[in-house]
Amino acid sequence: MNRRRRIYEGNAKILYEGPEPGTLIQHFKDDASGENKRRNEVVDGKGVLNNRISEYIFNNLNAMGIPTHFIRTLNMREQLIREVEIIPLEVVVRNVAAGSLAKRLGIEEGTPLPRSIIEFYYKNNELGDPMVSEEHVTAFGWASPQEIDDIMSLAIRVNDFLSGLFLGVGIRLIDFRLECGRLYENEMMRIIIADEISPDSCRLWDLTSSEKFSKDASRENGRVLAGYQEVARRLGILNTNERIVSSGPTLVQ
Amino acid sequence: MNRRRRIYEGNAKILYEGPEPGTLIQHFKDDASGENKRRNEVVDGKGVLNNRISEYIFNNLNAMGIPTHFIRTLNMREQLIREVEIIPLEVVVRNVAAGSLAKRLGIEEGTPLPRSIIEFYYKNNELGDPMVSEEHVTAFGWASPQEIDDIMSLAIRVNDFLSGLFLGVGIRLIDFRLECGRLYENEMMRIIIADEISPDSCRLWDLTSSEKFSKDASRENGRVLAGYQEVARRLGILNTNERIVSSGPTLVQ
Ligand SMILES: Nc1ncnc2c1ncn2[C@@H]1O[C@H](COP(=O)(O)OP(=O)(O)OP(=O)(O)O)[C@@H](O)[C@H]1O
Ligand SMILES: Nc1ncnc2c1ncn2[C@@H]1O[C@H](COP(=O)(O)OP(=O)(O)OP(=O)(O)O)[C@@H](O)[C@H]1O
Ligand SMILES: [Mg+2]
Ligand SMILES: [Mg+2]
Repeated sequence: MNRRRRIYEGNAKILYEGPEPGTLIQHFKDDASGENKRRNEVVDGKGVLNNRISEYIFNNLNAMGIPTHFIRTLNMREQLIREVEIIPLEVVVRNVAAGSLAKRLGIEEGTPLPRSIIEFYYKNNELGDPMVSEEHVTAFGWASPQEIDDIMSLAIRVNDFLSGLFLGVGIRLIDFRLECGRLYENEMMRIIIADEISPDSCRLWDLTSSEKFSKDASRENGRVLAGYQEVARRLGILNTNERIVSSGPTLVQ
Repeated sequence: MNRRRRIYEGNAKILYEGPEPGTLIQHFKDDASGENKRRNEVVDGKGVLNNRISEYIFNNLNAMGIPTHFIRTLNMREQLIREVEIIPLEVVVRNVAAGSLAKRLGIEEGTPLPRSIIEFYYKNNELGDPMVSEEHVTAFGWASPQEIDDIMSLAIRVNDFLSGLFLGVGIRLIDFRLECGRLYENEMMRIIIADEISPDSCRLWDLTSSEKFSKDASRENGRVLAGYQEVARRLGILNTNERIVSSGPTLVQ
């Protein structure tokens, strides 16, 4: 079947060796990730949607001069990306209190934050991705103070773009998660956005009804996929008569 | 009995109105605090020892130009302090991995940290004093970026002094907790150290045996007090033939 070398398999994606040095192939699986992953759920067609949504967003970021690892889409579930040295942090940008922040700081879900807040979580499944502060990040050498500044600048730019993008289609960007990596090129190093930006990594609520479209949606298989489809549809990257099923998109007549 | 107005009663201390405006009386109780407080333990004589140890340390900090709220000791359990506007953070300085840091980041207790790490916890008993980052502190207005800088500078100076002080008496300063407050004086505001510095707020291990002298000591009543007494004795502020009992120090012949 697949003769490519598999580099890494996570919950949501598989990385294969790419066709040229410095590239990788990112394959989107249907397996649930994040908070849902403990249940080993599978959401048929989720990988196809995430591949498409992430492609759309990363293409736009690239065009705006916000550097990402995305090169091009290869097929329904796979994209060609630049290999980076991943910084072991999940960078969370929050606009509205929800999830762990709401719980830990005793703020009602849905309360707008006084300003956007950037949080860092140490990417380590065994430890449950514990929240860390800049002090931990620099003391343990996960990133330098300069790199933290660069990451925060990128995160703010992405937040501005995504907030606008989703607002335009009637969706409130509550919070989202980024991963960044170091790209070494022409004897220079710069930080770029890696991984994915998709409903798996964003908390997206309908602007008027507050219906949840993303990872915190009602967790039945069908409901999760419906939310992801709605996001893609509003972004104009899924035709109204197109429906994603396990094997890819099909046309419903 | 006591005709003074009680301003606040916490687990470890009571604050009374002071004799002059802008002053308070800080009364040290025997009740266990911090991690031990859930058990409602009482350690006879602990308040007397903490009052004395905190007096000793704050006097030295004041003399070194590190500003604290401490004015003078009034009696065995009470000290006169300047009233400040408490910043709702517990500022933790760590030199060696222990407690929650060791657990959350999967580092063995006793491992020296690559450098000292300053952590902030939001002071809120109901929420269990959750860890926060500078982002939360500034976004929610608990302290300004300038105040965070001032607090960190003070914390580093206190850490330098305490590390030296305890090293000199054969004790390793693993970590400690500070509270800071705003003092308004002559139309100026500055940040000073408040609350207490005592074995209740420090993790102190014997330099050679690693015996625990402070809050994380074996939790039997007698053992806790013995650790606190040993710290006071080594600091030279408890005579070898003096023993603290519930009502205060007595001489053992
Ligand atoms: N451009 C890139 N170069 C190298 N590695 C990358 C790049 N982009 C993403 N990665 C890594 O690829 C992996 C994607 O796997 P996946 O997201 O499924 O698993 P995970 O992040 O380890 O776990 P989970 O997301 O389920 O918590 C991640 O480890 C991510 O850090
Ligand atoms: N100079 C000061 N001016 C005003 N308040 C102060 C000053 N120094 C300390 N405090 C406050 O006095 C209180 C001391 O009480 P105590 O330490 O017993 O309780 P606590 O900190 O609320 O709870 P815990 O048991 O977790 O320590 C704290 O709330 C502290 O913030
Ligand atoms: Mg991932
Ligand atoms: Mg206290």
